Amino acid sequence: MAEAERQTIPARGSLAVRVRRGQTVQVINTHGQQVVDTWAFAATDLGEFMSMEHSRASFRKAIPDVGDAFVTNRRRPILTITADTSGGVHDTLIAACDPFRYEQLGHVGYHENCTENLHAALATLDVVAPETPCPLNLFMNIAILEEGRLDWRPPVSKPGDAISLRAELDCIAVFSACPMDLLPINGTDGVPTEAHITIGD
Amino acid sequence: MAEAERQTIPARGSLAVRVRRGQTVQVINTHGQQVVDTWAFAATDLGEFMSMEHSRASFRKAIPDVGDAFVTNRRRPILTITADTSGGVHDTLIAACDPFRYEQLGHVGYHENCTENLHAALATLDVVAPETPCPLNLFMNIAILEEGRLDWRPPVSKPGDAISLRAELDCIAVFSACPMDLLPINGTDGVPTEAHITIGD
Repeated sequence: MAEAERQTIPARGSLAVRVRRGQTVQVINTHGQQVVDTWAFAATDLGEFMSMEHSRASFRKAIPDVGDAFVTNRRRPILTITADTSGGVHDTLIAACDPFRYEQLGHVGYHENCTENLHAALATLDVVAPETPCPLNLFMNIAILEEGRLDWRPPVSKPGDAISLRAELDCIAVFSACPMDLLPINGTDGVPTEAHITIGD
Repeated sequence: MAEAERQTIPARGSLAVRVRRGQTVQVINTHGQQVVDTWAFAATDLGEFMSMEHSRASFRKAIPDVGDAFVTNRRRPILTITADTSGGVHDTLIAACDPFRYEQLGHVGYHENCTENLHAALATLDVVAPETPCPLNLFMNIAILEEGRLDWRPPVSKPGDAISLRAELDCIAVFSACPMDLLPINGTDGVPTEAHITIGD
């Protein structure tokens, strides 16, 4: 197999790609500390999408492992984790950042955000999603403590770590390199970076 | 204050009510073992609704406590827990049951479900919700175990236990007495029951 071409998820930005059933998307944490908010929509109907609340009921975990399949809001498998060198710390609990989030954190003026990144990326494919589903936050380290308390921590991943996601449906996948720089979720230096993907058969 | 009138959430059914800002809805687990899937929508725009993924980011917990406020997908407080005699075990992680869920559990033919209950209840008020948000599953006991594994368990609540939710916005609240009878989530006897609410100033 020829080496798959790398595509860039720009720092603070996003990328939407079409993925055929059976293809695998590898998401690479190029610089090691970047959270990548990830969505997947059925190619034929964007009203069907990867759903964190349906997926947790399916694999009976808050945090999935290699071999687990995310399902849609119609409970059909859409992405399966087939490999993961990143330490396996990802998040399914937390909403994408949005203008309201940055305003509440004290930011004044415009701030890039994953919610707008999602819809902007879809627009590059001339499609519209009817909802903003809860994302799969790759590499995001939300620790679940006693009694369900949550703690925001830097990623445990290292430069070049990657997770592989096999498409179980023809789908549109969207990746946003989270621009959060007011909480240490993208590492303690507060500098969002680019990340990369490859798509292979 | 006159005693508030009890309204019934029928077994396997649902109820939608309008709640004014400042009013408190008490949700009563009349028979003790009934899960009540709960949603809230801003009265003026059902595109704004109580969001579990935004709420977890706000109160930084998977399971909220008395004093915690659920927020909308625009991060505005909508319902605050002001009292709870039920032991405090509720769920924010799991999707509402739907026809696909019962089919996958082996049920043949029609089965009542919380997703259709939500939309049917809203129709009684002549309104339509554009999405099926992840519900707040009152009294539902999804244990979060080590490494984020989840376990479906019977409620810890007793007959007459109740949780009080104060509206922070004029809203439409919907309650579905979960008809799940194939998993022990509504108690080990597998018999869904009615529940009740009161609305007080």
